[in-house]
Amino acid sequence: MNDTLNLRQQMSTKNIILLVLLLFIPVSLAAHFLEWGELIVFITAGLAILPLAAWMGTATEEIAVVVGPSLGGLLNATFGNATELIIALVALNAGLIDVVKASITGSIISNLLLVMGFSMLLGGLRYKEQTFQPIVARVNAASMNLAVIAILMPTAMNYTSQGINEETLQNLSIAVAVVLILVYALTLLFSMKTHSYLYDVGIAETEGEEAPHAKPNMMLWVGVLLVCTLLVALESEMLVDSLEVATSQLGLTALFTGVILVPIVGNAAEHATAVTVAMKDKMDLSLSVAVGSSMQIALFVAPVLVIAGRVLGKPMDLDFKPFELVAVVVSVLIANSISSDGKSNWLEGTLLLAAYTVLGFAFYFHPVMEGIG
Amino acid sequence: MNDTLNLRQQMSTKNIILLVLLLFIPVSLAAHFLEWGELIVFITAGLAILPLAAWMGTATEEIAVVVGPSLGGLLNATFGNATELIIALVALNAGLIDVVKASITGSIISNLLLVMGFSMLLGGLRYKEQTFQPIVARVNAASMNLAVIAILMPTAMNYTSQGINEETLQNLSIAVAVVLILVYALTLLFSMKTHSYLYDVGIAETEGEEAPHAKPNMMLWVGVLLVCTLLVALESEMLVDSLEVATSQLGLTALFTGVILVPIVGNAAEHATAVTVAMKDKMDLSLSVAVGSSMQIALFVAPVLVIAGRVLGKPMDLDFKPFELVAVVVSVLIANSISSDGKSNWLEGTLLLAAYTVLGFAFYFHPVMEGIG
Amino acid sequence: MNDTLNLRQQMSTKNIILLVLLLFIPVSLAAHFLEWGELIVFITAGLAILPLAAWMGTATEEIAVVVGPSLGGLLNATFGNATELIIALVALNAGLIDVVKASITGSIISNLLLVMGFSMLLGGLRYKEQTFQPIVARVNAASMNLAVIAILMPTAMNYTSQGINEETLQNLSIAVAVVLILVYALTLLFSMKTHSYLYDVGIAETEGEEAPHAKPNMMLWVGVLLVCTLLVALESEMLVDSLEVATSQLGLTALFTGVILVPIVGNAAEHATAVTVAMKDKMDLSLSVAVGSSMQIALFVAPVLVIAGRVLGKPMDLDFKPFELVAVVVSVLIANSISSDGKSNWLEGTLLLAAYTVLGFAFYFHPVMEGIG
Repeated sequence: MNDTLNLRQQMSTKNIILLVLLLFIPVSLAAHFLEWGELIVFITAGLAILPLAAWMGTATEEIAVVVGPSLGGLLNATFGNATELIIALVALNAGLIDVVKASITGSIISNLLLVMGFSMLLGGLRYKEQTFQPIVARVNAASMNLAVIAILMPTAMNYTSQGINEETLQNLSIAVAVVLILVYALTLLFSMKTHSYLYDVGIAETEGEEAPHAKPNMMLWVGVLLVCTLLVALESEMLVDSLEVATSQLGLTALFTGVILVPIVGNAAEHATAVTVAMKDKMDLSLSVAVGSSMQIALFVAPVLVIAGRVLGKPMDLDFKPFELVAVVVSVLIANSISSDGKSNWLEGTLLLAAYTVLGFAFYFHPVMEGIG
Repeated sequence: MNDTLNLRQQMSTKNIILLVLLLFIPVSLAAHFLEWGELIVFITAGLAILPLAAWMGTATEEIAVVVGPSLGGLLNATFGNATELIIALVALNAGLIDVVKASITGSIISNLLLVMGFSMLLGGLRYKEQTFQPIVARVNAASMNLAVIAILMPTAMNYTSQGINEETLQNLSIAVAVVLILVYALTLLFSMKTHSYLYDVGIAETEGEEAPHAKPNMMLWVGVLLVCTLLVALESEMLVDSLEVATSQLGLTALFTGVILVPIVGNAAEHATAVTVAMKDKMDLSLSVAVGSSMQIALFVAPVLVIAGRVLGKPMDLDFKPFELVAVVVSVLIANSISSDGKSNWLEGTLLLAAYTVLGFAFYFHPVMEGIG
Repeated sequence: MNDTLNLRQQMSTKNIILLVLLLFIPVSLAAHFLEWGELIVFITAGLAILPLAAWMGTATEEIAVVVGPSLGGLLNATFGNATELIIALVALNAGLIDVVKASITGSIISNLLLVMGFSMLLGGLRYKEQTFQPIVARVNAASMNLAVIAILMPTAMNYTSQGINEETLQNLSIAVAVVLILVYALTLLFSMKTHSYLYDVGIAETEGEEAPHAKPNMMLWVGVLLVCTLLVALESEMLVDSLEVATSQLGLTALFTGVILVPIVGNAAEHATAVTVAMKDKMDLSLSVAVGSSMQIALFVAPVLVIAGRVLGKPMDLDFKPFELVAVVVSVLIANSISSDGKSNWLEGTLLLAAYTVLGFAFYFHPVMEGIG
């Protein structure tokens, strides 16, 4: 009973915050057209995206309930990172290829370290030890390992060999992208069809919570989804346009912006969800949000961007900065070593956050390089 | 009953294929002496090696049954990768040192990713979840980790430091080779003497299968082993001689040939065995073939080649291309992360194959470098 | 009964050895003042430090018993690596910054591979399989992973990017040091307060052994601690002063000395303890000594040295040689893969020792570089 009340209170607190943040949509538009300065446009557009991302997430989930688990899961899997995808496509089209690449690595890092770290820390402050399905954690870890290996292969090849031309990197990147999208489709087949029983615990928990729901009005949610998608595109445009001037005013490099700032905006919704459910001791769900989001970025968003870049005539390869490679490898290794036993506690959460802090410092102190600063 | 029939059918199908492939021995000889072109020599010699490798494997196992488990195990451990060893020695003697080195890394990669991947995928299509002894998997993984670390140490040293001369690399490689052969002897002691009970499951399975066997005629099999060994040497000679011209006609680099093509020929027999037993749900045996073969390459074949190189006056160090180092490390990491929990399913097999595909693309696109192309 | 007798015998044998080694204090002083040569000073000072380090350890433990578990644990955690810290501070003050850095990586490597390896090997020769708490092993492994990642971040950044100036590396190193000291404090909070029950097994074992003890005379042990600390400082001074000349006379590089020789002297006490308890099948205690010591070096000693360097006006950053990075990463990976399942046997110990041997060869053959040789 008490728990339900708390839940409702939390829900309404969240909704009030989202409604207030909605005010930043007109504010950002005003800032843009009345030329209040790039920095203000950047900050207000960033804040305006937060409620839109949250509602896109809710709308996707509600539509998924109506259309049934199979199609719904596919919808969730495709639109789950719609915000990141839209921001990235806008930035790609604007030619900010290095920012797009940095935001891919940044999204992976922030989901694995920041989101999972806060979930384990805040969950661990309430519960001495939290448990989750180690099999799912391992399958996810293996998929992430593969994705990271594949995504970073062009970087590793370019870094360890001389005289690789841009075309070779492009071709290798396209080939890798195709493999990854196939693997993504197969992981969906695995989790929704052939081995869905492994994932049932998490789903049951979510459904239990949504049981008292009225049957959602599908048309309403499709409308919400469309409007939010449009507005996110719009706000992303302003965010991206103001990005370079704004961040240089703040004394930040484009690398730091791409790796640290953009993913925090783009992943805010997942972040809130993962931490909230962790505090209710639903670690399976919490981890599937954090790791699942990283997996979507690595197996779906990144390859789609490579292919979209080719189509848009803004070719984007998967040749990252070597230090980004180091950061991603390090994040995956420490996240694996902490999650593989199916148990978590506050210290493990703290270790993930400490790793994120150290990487944050490193990217902050990282010198400006040609092509990205 | 039905299973036994299927087994017999499979056996005879396999034997028919092997007999047909045997025809490539005279064909390859004809191609060589009648000068039908290097490409045809290369392909026919490659095909001719397949049945010889398979019979060498069978002969070794049959002899092992007669001489008893201890000596037999040693025989198996020594001649298990005889085909690779012979091809590599012939290539080493011909001065194709980079091809030899590439085929070492390629054998490790193809056993861990291609062979284990197909075993888990095809086994997983029949059985929802397959299990195997996690302790053996871990001991093997630890041995592989050590071997890979040791083998790649000279590469890592050369890559991270300037001004290392060839003699230092040679001396370090010989020292590493000696350590590895000692470790190999100790792993045999562990698996056959002090902790053989851990490996009993797998052996029982094999013996069960071989129970209806007539007592093998030892002299016959020794004869088969000798004849096959001679023919493999012979065919390897033609394979190696035609290798450079043939692969350049196919538009392939020597690196791709060494890392991808040669190991597929050399490991075909293990490959067939591992997949066949996996489809009978004998994952312990399947993995011990795949991982055991990698271990033999890393702990025995590679060090023997280093020492043989010194003896033959064709000094071979363990300084690999940096990208080979990346590929091996990546293969070991993903194979460890998938096999360490003692369970497998079709998705895990797919992930290994996807990793192999991505590495294959990378080696295909890898530019030609001085000394290897 | 018999066991107790053996224990007493071992104790007295150990004490006799320590008393004999004590003679090297006057010998080293004579060698220094009568100018018998740098090599003799170096060797005798090194031998003289061994009994002092052992008694400092005993004194800290005895005082810890009197002041109670909380304050005692803190004392142990702070003074546990006092010898290394003193040698390092003296060397830092003498400007031997590269030797200090090398001894940090060397201490981590030797604790994880040499100490843990000998413990598992010698314990495993007596007991077929030894077990220890996998949860503690995993938490320790995760902390080590974080520490190693953090410590090596400046190296990784410097190696993967051009044009990083010394000041940036200094600032990043100080930031990392502060994060690590905070993490160290939190791991103490975890192991002593919030999750102390996980560590109870090991503590119970130690207490059981110390039960027949008379109540220690606190004043006596404080005196011993002070005298030993003073003498270690003194002897460290001579060790460090003679280090450069002595090692070059032995034909060794400063890198080899820092990574291999200095840690063997500095960790001799932990080494003896870890092996002794492993042979009594107390693997929890043995591993907590080995891994705990590495953790203290990485989370406490190294950051303190960075901050002390800034205070002493001898700025020390965390930019190690790239090959040291490789060696530490490799050591952590193989130690993790062997200890994470909570079981050990003699082969696993051998693998750790083989890894140490290979790294030892690599550092021995490593060419002299500017700034360190």
